[in-house]
Amino acid sequence: MMVVMKAGHTKEEFDGVMRRLEEVGLSGHPIEGAERTVIGVVGIVYPELGDDLETMPGVENTVRISSPYKLCSREFKPADTVVDINGTLIGAGTVTVIAGPCAIESEEQLMTTARAVKARGGSMLRGGAFKPRTSPYSFRGLEEQGLKLLAQAREETGLPVCTEVMSEATVEVVAKYADVLQIGTRNAQNFFLLEEVAITGKPVLLKRGMSSSVMDWLLAAEYILAKGNRNVILCERGIRTFETATRNTMDINAIPLVKELSHLPIVADPSHGTGKWHLVEPVSLGMVAAGADGLILEVHPSPEHALSDGAQSLTFESLGSLMEHTATIAHAIGKRMEREAAQVTA
Amino acid sequence: MMVVMKAGHTKEEFDGVMRRLEEVGLSGHPIEGAERTVIGVVGIVYPELGDDLETMPGVENTVRISSPYKLCSREFKPADTVVDINGTLIGAGTVTVIAGPCAIESEEQLMTTARAVKARGGSMLRGGAFKPRTSPYSFRGLEEQGLKLLAQAREETGLPVCTEVMSEATVEVVAKYADVLQIGTRNAQNFFLLEEVAITGKPVLLKRGMSSSVMDWLLAAEYILAKGNRNVILCERGIRTFETATRNTMDINAIPLVKELSHLPIVADPSHGTGKWHLVEPVSLGMVAAGADGLILEVHPSPEHALSDGAQSLTFESLGSLMEHTATIAHAIGKRMEREAAQVTA
Amino acid sequence: MMVVMKAGHTKEEFDGVMRRLEEVGLSGHPIEGAERTVIGVVGIVYPELGDDLETMPGVENTVRISSPYKLCSREFKPADTVVDINGTLIGAGTVTVIAGPCAIESEEQLMTTARAVKARGGSMLRGGAFKPRTSPYSFRGLEEQGLKLLAQAREETGLPVCTEVMSEATVEVVAKYADVLQIGTRNAQNFFLLEEVAITGKPVLLKRGMSSSVMDWLLAAEYILAKGNRNVILCERGIRTFETATRNTMDINAIPLVKELSHLPIVADPSHGTGKWHLVEPVSLGMVAAGADGLILEVHPSPEHALSDGAQSLTFESLGSLMEHTATIAHAIGKRMEREAAQVTA
Amino acid sequence: MMVVMKAGHTKEEFDGVMRRLEEVGLSGHPIEGAERTVIGVVGIVYPELGDDLETMPGVENTVRISSPYKLCSREFKPADTVVDINGTLIGAGTVTVIAGPCAIESEEQLMTTARAVKARGGSMLRGGAFKPRTSPYSFRGLEEQGLKLLAQAREETGLPVCTEVMSEATVEVVAKYADVLQIGTRNAQNFFLLEEVAITGKPVLLKRGMSSSVMDWLLAAEYILAKGNRNVILCERGIRTFETATRNTMDINAIPLVKELSHLPIVADPSHGTGKWHLVEPVSLGMVAAGADGLILEVHPSPEHALSDGAQSLTFESLGSLMEHTATIAHAIGKRMEREAAQVTA
Repeated sequence: MMVVMKAGHTKEEFDGVMRRLEEVGLSGHPIEGAERTVIGVVGIVYPELGDDLETMPGVENTVRISSPYKLCSREFKPADTVVDINGTLIGAGTVTVIAGPCAIESEEQLMTTARAVKARGGSMLRGGAFKPRTSPYSFRGLEEQGLKLLAQAREETGLPVCTEVMSEATVEVVAKYADVLQIGTRNAQNFFLLEEVAITGKPVLLKRGMSSSVMDWLLAAEYILAKGNRNVILCERGIRTFETATRNTMDINAIPLVKELSHLPIVADPSHGTGKWHLVEPVSLGMVAAGADGLILEVHPSPEHALSDGAQSLTFESLGSLMEHTATIAHAIGKRMEREAAQVTA
Repeated sequence: MMVVMKAGHTKEEFDGVMRRLEEVGLSGHPIEGAERTVIGVVGIVYPELGDDLETMPGVENTVRISSPYKLCSREFKPADTVVDINGTLIGAGTVTVIAGPCAIESEEQLMTTARAVKARGGSMLRGGAFKPRTSPYSFRGLEEQGLKLLAQAREETGLPVCTEVMSEATVEVVAKYADVLQIGTRNAQNFFLLEEVAITGKPVLLKRGMSSSVMDWLLAAEYILAKGNRNVILCERGIRTFETATRNTMDINAIPLVKELSHLPIVADPSHGTGKWHLVEPVSLGMVAAGADGLILEVHPSPEHALSDGAQSLTFESLGSLMEHTATIAHAIGKRMEREAAQVTA
Repeated sequence: MMVVMKAGHTKEEFDGVMRRLEEVGLSGHPIEGAERTVIGVVGIVYPELGDDLETMPGVENTVRISSPYKLCSREFKPADTVVDINGTLIGAGTVTVIAGPCAIESEEQLMTTARAVKARGGSMLRGGAFKPRTSPYSFRGLEEQGLKLLAQAREETGLPVCTEVMSEATVEVVAKYADVLQIGTRNAQNFFLLEEVAITGKPVLLKRGMSSSVMDWLLAAEYILAKGNRNVILCERGIRTFETATRNTMDINAIPLVKELSHLPIVADPSHGTGKWHLVEPVSLGMVAAGADGLILEVHPSPEHALSDGAQSLTFESLGSLMEHTATIAHAIGKRMEREAAQVTA
Repeated sequence: MMVVMKAGHTKEEFDGVMRRLEEVGLSGHPIEGAERTVIGVVGIVYPELGDDLETMPGVENTVRISSPYKLCSREFKPADTVVDINGTLIGAGTVTVIAGPCAIESEEQLMTTARAVKARGGSMLRGGAFKPRTSPYSFRGLEEQGLKLLAQAREETGLPVCTEVMSEATVEVVAKYADVLQIGTRNAQNFFLLEEVAITGKPVLLKRGMSSSVMDWLLAAEYILAKGNRNVILCERGIRTFETATRNTMDINAIPLVKELSHLPIVADPSHGTGKWHLVEPVSLGMVAAGADGLILEVHPSPEHALSDGAQSLTFESLGSLMEHTATIAHAIGKRMEREAAQVTA
């Protein structure tokens, strides 16, 4: 950490900062610049130190040098993390597609969709049993009945299943049925929930908060890793900006940036990232070309009758087109589709 | 709701939309404009209808006409809601100041602060026992021990106490000690938690999500009201924007806008809204002048030794100055300080 | 346009709106909804009508139905516009790469770079002679001397040249030398400049304003088209958001969205969109995969000695890698590189 | 400036940075921290140095310590700047109200408004003769005819006049008639225009760019001061955020923050900052309470017939109410209204 002193600070103010650093077991190394004096702080800095120092007289501001996350950083673990979900891999140089309905509505809807996902090359099934809805008057999911249908779909298709956990009270029941626990954007900084999910030991798909910076997001992942669960899949799902022509702004920069900063795999969710089904395919191709380890997609047998997110759901036909074109892009950048990979090894 | 048809839509597409409206018990009223045909939809529209219709061929988009929240709207209840916390009022034409430390650190820290808040005219004590921290390595609060200290401070000073609930698991214990349950910005759309808190029947201070629009925020309040708890206090605490010179951007527009749209009282949190203690007083005065029903402030006996949010905490001295100037502004706009009001009635 | 009346409006207020519509030659068609009365407005609406009506008593708000841009809309001209710059095409199903230094610094720097761009398959040379700099104390370009160097580089390499116009006073001199006139992000809504540039008749590369919505951007293009200049190339260069880990947030959604709304070609600028040279290649691949008609890139013989934007400039070596991988992506989606296309037709 | 080296950098990389600093006449002072080596740079740093160094191998990033603006900083000039417009003061501990129509439409409209502004205590008249419009099809102003009307209104009322300059070509004609030249939000970083306006020597009212950070804004002011014109009035007019319920988000934090960082006076524009006339009064009161030196307001004899910005224009009646309440707030914080001040001195 660097402490920047105000122009015209007094000797007492300077000494006060040096003394405070000593009090907390750190050492200060002053540099007299042309316009400012800066004190370099050496030692293990605790997270609140900057805030504390900034309240002291004579201090203009402080600048953190090291990143506050550790376990999820590339420095801590240089090799890519590969998450293994009963043999389905994410982050192994493959493009892994997770697809399914936004909300599970009925046995027929889910089974038809699961078969379509399987047939078109998807690696995993998604579907919401507990749904976060902006309005309390919206459809909120089939709850445990939905989870049972997911398990039935896995039974039939062999696809692992991923579903959202929205509350601590339902972590146990969701973990009983699901292969991957998803944390949604509205719970991206619900730290208690992150820890409850972490200790189930199940892989976690952690969506980025709609106003989380990349640093906030990696710190949220750190909550899970700090509880001993290393199976975290990051998911870029768009951030909230001034642009209203699309539901969110998909942050393509985050894909290669996260790959630099962290060893964790990262997938993209163009359904939420765009909010419009006709933008989902081109944005999917873009995110894969930029290095995403996979995609998570909303698909519905009949989007115009969907109980939620119809406008951003693909039909089976458009899913088929997307899968075909995604495979072409994956090959162009030297990757394989995860299901192809499985077939080859099989 | 209005359905806007694409230029050049076919008769089949138009008929499809009209038929779909009939299916769900609504009626469609077409208007042929110069460039577009628009279908006015008459009847009670369910939240997902727009999404559904937007997936239909020939439909360009849909426009919602009525606001999706009901119980918290000014139309539903024209008169201002006054929240009564054992005699301390919020929203009664008064300025109610809630102050205290970001985190409760020790008996001495809390008691000293509580006395200072009381002495300087504060109406309520705040203090965090469970703290949401961006990093898992930060100080996370004294938990139940902190709640007991709050109760002790209430005992001594007579001030009601307000503290944050971060998880469903702790709603019960927090409700046992606190007079007002606070929902923090990171849980502003944690809908399960909103409902759990609602059913305690205790007043709820609902912070705006850092990326919540005013509509999202009122819909979050609607979750609480829909569970039968009408004692909701809204709290503007700044939103996340591109500006990094301050911690958040305080949305002063939201004060009179919320007053128009809703009957609920609204307070402002300039400590988080600015992140810098020296901006807290001028922004407090501004928010009160714009119509806020109160302020929630971070204050600490020794901000440079605070375990969290030191940089935005007031000293007792600066709290005193702020209270005095706030009272002047309150009087200028024809309001009284809540504690004055109490003294007069007493 | 739709006029939404307030709940509980009076008959006089309703009649006032109907009368006002008649005054301006429009007709109103009321629809009585469950909660609101809406008046559909038929006729050619002038841009300010909505604002006017919203000030009338009894009016809650108005909703515009038709898009306010015309000439740049896909409806007005369904076929893609191909911009032809002396035989170099943008928008013809090809990927056209424009590359060069941020600022022209010297003959040697520009010539070396121009040769490198040519050798690695670039289609056009870029380089700044007049530079917009956030600080008045930064290097601001070689001005006309820079333009002469650009012309010399075109002479030698045969590549057309693109450079920014920053002021009306220099439109003439820039148009004398340049093949494409670039409007930078800070002038994206400098409407006088847009018109001055338009009437030169030269192709215009119009960068998106850093806080322009897609609609604002298309309306800025409309200023150019309305002056009779149809040769507009849109350029997505990232928008300003809360994320500070990258210089801007590249809006990948805008690529397919603009393709839907408009017939104009669109290129991407990952140098400014990311601000970090090591993110430029993956983001370039992503933007091309999502449908961009080309890329505009900053490249420098020695980025660490660049007088501006060194941190986001590619070396010749990294440009070579990017071009090779971009070609692979272009082929995967059924496109060709513009220079390949030229070679094949040659 | 601080240069942060990557973990695991080589000695060669470190030596390279030290050598580069020497090359440009600076000295480097290394500090070995627990996780990172940081090099403190001593000497006068040029603006591009950080960018250059960040491209060097082994460098993680750089951190600027001194602010890049000088002439407009509080450090450079501790005392408040008071701008004197023929005896009308801005920044002299007074609240100065500038009011008038968005666009000048006719002699009658302007004269009526000017008289109303004068009668209700306004200090200056505003009115647009050249209008920036998002759409090329909107009304764009009376141009020089409008300027003549402004001069006529000044003649009659004695109020100085303020109007926007939109292009270099019209700086001369606008400066011939206007007392204060306004730079609009869309030209906030049109650096050529800033310099052209500066050299007229007339006071400049510089609106904040809708996506300008406070630092960007002060750097834009620096362009004017660097040309020798010290009469700059900053104007906060709202920034662009995700919130769409209001036209912009008024940044109240910017008022006290700018007061700390700079000696320049700052006024607020709640008409553009909110976009809704019924929010203008409460937000005006808030901005004044937070320390703004004045207000700039849109007022129209008949807002529902305004050719632009009707929805945010005050009637004469609502202006009267606002002026009265603003005066009460001004007095509460120990200020006077500028027109009162003038009357007292007269």
